[in-house]
Amino acid sequence: MKLNEGIEWGIHCCGLLATLPEGAALPTTKLAEFFDLPKDYLAKHLQHLSRAGLVNSSRGPGGGYSLARPADKIRLLDIVEAIDGKGPSFRCAEIRRRGPSAVGSECYQKDCCISRAMLRADAAWRQSLASVTLATLCDESKEDMPSEQFQKAQAWIEQEVG
Amino acid sequence: MKLNEGIEWGIHCCGLLATLPEGAALPTTKLAEFFDLPKDYLAKHLQHLSRAGLVNSSRGPGGGYSLARPADKIRLLDIVEAIDGKGPSFRCAEIRRRGPSAVGSECYQKDCCISRAMLRADAAWRQSLASVTLATLCDESKEDMPSEQFQKAQAWIEQEVG
Repeated sequence: MKLNEGIEWGIHCCGLLATLPEGAALPTTKLAEFFDLPKDYLAKHLQHLSRAGLVNSSRGPGGGYSLARPADKIRLLDIVEAIDGKGPSFRCAEIRRRGPSAVGSECYQKDCCISRAMLRADAAWRQSLASVTLATLCDESKEDMPSEQFQKAQAWIEQEVG
Repeated sequence: MKLNEGIEWGIHCCGLLATLPEGAALPTTKLAEFFDLPKDYLAKHLQHLSRAGLVNSSRGPGGGYSLARPADKIRLLDIVEAIDGKGPSFRCAEIRRRGPSAVGSECYQKDCCISRAMLRADAAWRQSLASVTLATLCDESKEDMPSEQFQKAQAWIEQEVG
């Protein structure tokens, strides 16, 4: 079970957008530049964030992506599901209904207990992601970030959207 | 994030092995027959279970796979990790250390907070899987299984290893 690299990209981009001054936006090119990411691949993931209603995009000079709602209203789960999809990690293929012991499908009253246990684990994963907001991540990131990096990031933002 | 179909196969196969009489074993061909699975693909997953020490394999007449320890000493997590690997679902590529704000790697004292949050979710998933034993799944399965299927399964096992 390996998550798409776009998840890390999407979370970091949302984190950067959360630090922009009110009304400011950053286009794909600038987001890609800030994290040194391939622009075309990043564009695809940003479109997923946009389709999920997490970011807005605007055109023209000064246009680009901005957060569609405050960072404390965006959960880590929202970003992960925007990029990775909402479907559970486990899909039951009902192999219990095959082979020499199989009986008519009308006989199976309950979901397979293996599927239920796997889906409980999936729910625990999503619950953990739902408990963290982008605002919390931004606070933690600001605290953990080397001070020199913080200054360089601020200077870059000032230059791009100031 | 989609789990390998072999996980469902591996759990069901362990469940079937758990119901065998003491000392009995089933070869790959028979396990594949019981769940109507492609033998060659299943063989690969059974080898993973064997390498992880969850099943033993024996040769000759009456040989095949058997559980290497009692079903209450095998956790759902053990089976999932045997087939899917133990590595976490999220791999941090450290994109925070790239681009115009990057500073020397010696400046980063802590793991990225995004990575920490993603790994907490991964741990919650594994913890949920670790809380379920194969013995519990077998009990639930026996309870949920249509009675006609239970009888057909017993008859098949009796015929194969009785």
